Amino acid sequence: MFEIGRSKRAQQAFAFDDIAIVPSRRTRGEEQVNLTWRIDAFTFDFPLIAAPMDSVMSPATAIEMGRLGGLGVLNLEGLWTRYENPEPLLEEIAAIEDPGAATRRMQEIYAEPIKEELIGQRVAEVRSAGVPAAGALSPQNTQAYAGAVVASGVDFFVIRGTTVSAEHVAGKAEPLNLKQFIYALDVPVIVGGCATYQAALHLMRTGAAGVLVGFGGGAAHTTRDVLGVAVPMASAVSDVAAARRDYLDESGGRYVHVIADGSVGRSGDIAKAIACGADAVMVGSPLAKASEAPGRGYHWGPEAWHARLPRGERVAFDVVGTLEQILRGPSAVPDGTMNLVGALRKAMATTGYTEVKEFQRVEVIVG
Amino acid sequence: MFEIGRSKRAQQAFAFDDIAIVPSRRTRGEEQVNLTWRIDAFTFDFPLIAAPMDSVMSPATAIEMGRLGGLGVLNLEGLWTRYENPEPLLEEIAAIEDPGAATRRMQEIYAEPIKEELIGQRVAEVRSAGVPAAGALSPQNTQAYAGAVVASGVDFFVIRGTTVSAEHVAGKAEPLNLKQFIYALDVPVIVGGCATYQAALHLMRTGAAGVLVGFGGGAAHTTRDVLGVAVPMASAVSDVAAARRDYLDESGGRYVHVIADGSVGRSGDIAKAIACGADAVMVGSPLAKASEAPGRGYHWGPEAWHARLPRGERVAFDVVGTLEQILRGPSAVPDGTMNLVGALRKAMATTGYTEVKEFQRVEVIVG
Amino acid sequence: MFEIGRSKRAQQAFAFDDIAIVPSRRTRGEEQVNLTWRIDAFTFDFPLIAAPMDSVMSPATAIEMGRLGGLGVLNLEGLWTRYENPEPLLEEIAAIEDPGAATRRMQEIYAEPIKEELIGQRVAEVRSAGVPAAGALSPQNTQAYAGAVVASGVDFFVIRGTTVSAEHVAGKAEPLNLKQFIYALDVPVIVGGCATYQAALHLMRTGAAGVLVGFGGGAAHTTRDVLGVAVPMASAVSDVAAARRDYLDESGGRYVHVIADGSVGRSGDIAKAIACGADAVMVGSPLAKASEAPGRGYHWGPEAWHARLPRGERVAFDVVGTLEQILRGPSAVPDGTMNLVGALRKAMATTGYTEVKEFQRVEVIVG
Amino acid sequence: MFEIGRSKRAQQAFAFDDIAIVPSRRTRGEEQVNLTWRIDAFTFDFPLIAAPMDSVMSPATAIEMGRLGGLGVLNLEGLWTRYENPEPLLEEIAAIEDPGAATRRMQEIYAEPIKEELIGQRVAEVRSAGVPAAGALSPQNTQAYAGAVVASGVDFFVIRGTTVSAEHVAGKAEPLNLKQFIYALDVPVIVGGCATYQAALHLMRTGAAGVLVGFGGGAAHTTRDVLGVAVPMASAVSDVAAARRDYLDESGGRYVHVIADGSVGRSGDIAKAIACGADAVMVGSPLAKASEAPGRGYHWGPEAWHARLPRGERVAFDVVGTLEQILRGPSAVPDGTMNLVGALRKAMATTGYTEVKEFQRVEVIVG
Repeated sequence: MFEIGRSKRAQQAFAFDDIAIVPSRRTRGEEQVNLTWRIDAFTFDFPLIAAPMDSVMSPATAIEMGRLGGLGVLNLEGLWTRYENPEPLLEEIAAIEDPGAATRRMQEIYAEPIKEELIGQRVAEVRSAGVPAAGALSPQNTQAYAGAVVASGVDFFVIRGTTVSAEHVAGKAEPLNLKQFIYALDVPVIVGGCATYQAALHLMRTGAAGVLVGFGGGAAHTTRDVLGVAVPMASAVSDVAAARRDYLDESGGRYVHVIADGSVGRSGDIAKAIACGADAVMVGSPLAKASEAPGRGYHWGPEAWHARLPRGERVAFDVVGTLEQILRGPSAVPDGTMNLVGALRKAMATTGYTEVKEFQRVEVIVG
Repeated sequence: MFEIGRSKRAQQAFAFDDIAIVPSRRTRGEEQVNLTWRIDAFTFDFPLIAAPMDSVMSPATAIEMGRLGGLGVLNLEGLWTRYENPEPLLEEIAAIEDPGAATRRMQEIYAEPIKEELIGQRVAEVRSAGVPAAGALSPQNTQAYAGAVVASGVDFFVIRGTTVSAEHVAGKAEPLNLKQFIYALDVPVIVGGCATYQAALHLMRTGAAGVLVGFGGGAAHTTRDVLGVAVPMASAVSDVAAARRDYLDESGGRYVHVIADGSVGRSGDIAKAIACGADAVMVGSPLAKASEAPGRGYHWGPEAWHARLPRGERVAFDVVGTLEQILRGPSAVPDGTMNLVGALRKAMATTGYTEVKEFQRVEVIVG
Repeated sequence: MFEIGRSKRAQQAFAFDDIAIVPSRRTRGEEQVNLTWRIDAFTFDFPLIAAPMDSVMSPATAIEMGRLGGLGVLNLEGLWTRYENPEPLLEEIAAIEDPGAATRRMQEIYAEPIKEELIGQRVAEVRSAGVPAAGALSPQNTQAYAGAVVASGVDFFVIRGTTVSAEHVAGKAEPLNLKQFIYALDVPVIVGGCATYQAALHLMRTGAAGVLVGFGGGAAHTTRDVLGVAVPMASAVSDVAAARRDYLDESGGRYVHVIADGSVGRSGDIAKAIACGADAVMVGSPLAKASEAPGRGYHWGPEAWHARLPRGERVAFDVVGTLEQILRGPSAVPDGTMNLVGALRKAMATTGYTEVKEFQRVEVIVG
Repeated sequence: MFEIGRSKRAQQAFAFDDIAIVPSRRTRGEEQVNLTWRIDAFTFDFPLIAAPMDSVMSPATAIEMGRLGGLGVLNLEGLWTRYENPEPLLEEIAAIEDPGAATRRMQEIYAEPIKEELIGQRVAEVRSAGVPAAGALSPQNTQAYAGAVVASGVDFFVIRGTTVSAEHVAGKAEPLNLKQFIYALDVPVIVGGCATYQAALHLMRTGAAGVLVGFGGGAAHTTRDVLGVAVPMASAVSDVAAARRDYLDESGGRYVHVIADGSVGRSGDIAKAIACGADAVMVGSPLAKASEAPGRGYHWGPEAWHARLPRGERVAFDVVGTLEQILRGPSAVPDGTMNLVGALRKAMATTGYTEVKEFQRVEVIVG
């Protein structure tokens, strides 16, 4: 604990950049590493989830993500459910060079209402490809559109906001009772972001299959500047992993998955997230660098087009390869942007681990 | 405590940039957040005060600040009380590109003596608009011009210097006895800056309604370079908030407002200042970015034109919007420079708080 | 120990840049400083080893390194054992400006298989010059080519990888049993990298004459970004030096040399490595700045051309002088890139030390 | 204490940039501040000493420094004692743009032997102006030229090196016995650099009137890169101030002046040096910005032209004003480069101090 001043104390919190993984006395062959991720009735080849952001996930890229062995989550309140054909708009956003102009134009484009029928249509597109379909709403829109989402036949329902709490107190409308809501649903729910032990424990008690740790993003986010709020991810993941352990005991054996969501820009961050206790990692910006990415070299989150208080930037990236190359290699660049899965495999092998669950115990240092 | 060396110990002090606010397990609807600020007999819509700096406050912008629901403080020893019509001089300063030349020209322009009659005239201009009128003097000029200020009918008298102490020992003249002075006045006094628990406690005992915490500025200040003196604001605000608490007890219930004054450049800093214990925040540079700002894209404090030892720079800013847009939005930029009030509201809602006084207890982290 | 979060603790680790050597109350004449380094039956004029990297060591520069009084290690799985005449390829690599293109071309060039007969030929070239010959393999290639290396008559056998463990568990093939392997060899073995007390202790127990501390490089490495793995060198060297001390006790007197390998870019880093406990220092990038360096102004390690997951960059350097000037001076630049040996001598003299073994105890500070 | 690793511990050390002075509850009028500095039989208007560096001190500027109320120290082994008329050479050095070429040319120019007769002549030039004359030699040259220096009639004899120890062990020649040497001299001796409590205590026991704290420089120094040696000044000054206190007790009342020498680039650093315990401050680079400075906009120390291992750079500065303006103001720039004396006066007044000796106790923070 630090004493900020005579009336305030604070704990130190650590970002992924503040820590590093340390090799141990054992090494393993890469072929021995098992990256399989099982959640609910589903098994994925690797523990990576594509973030429900319009610059990353379209029906086509969600399908490709699934074919490659991971889970892609479609944003069900983004362009694909506001417009029948958003491609020209994605093209238009990519053509605006000035960041300020891009923000203002996105504020206009996203003012278009969500079309309930498009929710079912988008999910059906993904399902028809034979891969698991996952769709995301923000907490604000969950009550209004949850029916359509469930009716669409999603395999995972993701409720994702900058902060999602089990206990939201609102003035006008009756707030969403997450526990009742999740209980009533037939599909597994992944919910977040949360950033602290207490918040996570409350979310776990709602019956969620997984919780998202983080405050909604890294690269494209300016929440620290705008709100003063920030969640250094290494500490947040470690705190929520402790909530998972304690809830496992409290619940008599329910294992809620901890999914790091934010500040994962390079493959090394994926390894660090797991080293801090994550079961899986949601990635946004790394996939925005794919040649198939709908953002066409740009990346933004829902905060970027908020009508009255935008809290994110549209950031520009160079395209580095196909989605397959970014996820499974081979890599031709040494900067942690390609072969994310191979890098995780290598990080585990080189430090002597073969199972993701074990790798959560690898030694890390501050420095 | 750190040991600097064998003969010196030092405490660690934290700036706003060193800390961040952490979400808790609860969230609130933004419409439930109450930002009302009450001091003395006045109520403001939000706890923001415009700093008495010539680049920010003119009679016109002080009126606009009041109309928008805040408090604007006029600098009563700046250009508006030295010149009948300072607009051409403000124009001239803005036209000088070279910073060194700007400093030298400002040293000349501010060499013009203060006109006592202009003090009354400027305050009257603000009062005639029906908004609360506040005027500021430095401690050095307080004795000479306080009479004129009080006669002018100000609603708030601000005594603002880089360091204001209740106990100033001077050689030549009899120093200002703040306690007697404030006692004798009819209007509420806000006085500062102060930076430590002890200094604040002494200022509170003078009868001030509020104390300014800080050393006179952030963006435009070079006091650390020139004097070696610095006041990391998170620690200073927290220390002075402790003095408020102890003085409340000592005085049997007098609540002195703690006003953060310095290093507030973005909306997130406002939230952090309150999280550290402030009741209100004095802002300079954020308002210098208004299209109405007298500085015309430049910003400077009284230190910038000191005749023998300037300790501040004239800094250049891009204009981002109107004073109203900067204060109340909507924002079109994601960098914490617009919709300051909306951002504070959002920061409180997203961390589960509805009252400013409660938000002083929100958890912060170092990192 | 830091608490990263409720489920993870971490120690702080320090890089060479985090520390500095402090002068003591005594100074010495430089002529009194003894830099002689004795390992196994060999004595060198100074404790510097040239790293087995293709941009630094060719048969010619390994010979020159030996003539100047140090030890040059040839990379026995690099271009010189894959190609009869690699000079045109080194020329070609140096002619590629674009870093990405360079990575891709190196991936192709290094795909050529190692020629066993060239191993003997290259070692013979060095031996014929009358200087100690040392050759390096990675752990992956050790079993396949160790016979050829030993048959070649090397004086030192270096097994160098990003992480080498005494206990490697592989799936397909029977892994290398380092202890049996080293025991069976007639030549002294230097093995690494290792980064922790435990890993080093296990390597020392294999019978190695020296262990390399580090994770394979500084300037040209991106392992922290790609894998999340990093080894701040000051801490790693200090930990391994503790293993040397404990193994000395455990073994009843066997002294295993600790060789810092990585993050040594300037002469001051050499002094710091020894101050942390190293007996000798392996240098790469400083020698890549020699006019004779095969890299022709570029520098890369084996990670840079990995087929599926490159983890290093080809970095560009200005040539600063001959290998002799870089090692023994005189220097004409004040940036720690020339007269590495003279700088170490001066660092020891100015802090009052004459023996390298004593200098391991010099005081350092964090700051 | 930090644990660098299992075999090494280190204390944290602080630079002037790491700390800041904190205002207290009292303020003073500037006119009450007394900056007089008394050492031996001499009294100076302010506690600043010009460093014996060829870019700063010539006979003319040493005289000007004295006239302005401070102490200028002539470098008695620099250009002024190697050449009858060094002005053309200073001109030539200033005309070389390339830093590397400048280093090499300075190595040649300074190869010219010192002329003993010029020592007397230069000191006489300063003495004839009626100001205190001080001359400096390095420890290496002290035995050879001390006779000439004393014969010249200096008022202060400065022995200045990167590290000066009371106990230097040399191989060839009998080393200088500082204690006997100083005892035998008639003039007060200022000796340094030293950086630790122990080294300072030993130097104080030699009979020196003052000790220089530091390792010979800030701006122009690259010793950390070249040797790995560094002395964070805030900690060093505080440690040496503790030695002064303990030696005062041990000696029954001999007060040895602590003079900070290094890393003082701005006026704020002067205040911080005193806040850490210094009695006076030796300044180099701030005076190199004077229009009269012999360096003509360049600044270098003796390390910059070392024949085999240069450890300093010739750095370029903009001229900001006359020596008088830099020392006594008025200042026209807000960056701590002008009105050094006025800034120290202001720093003391604003924090409530009137005496330098008292100001050594002012509160500082880390942050």
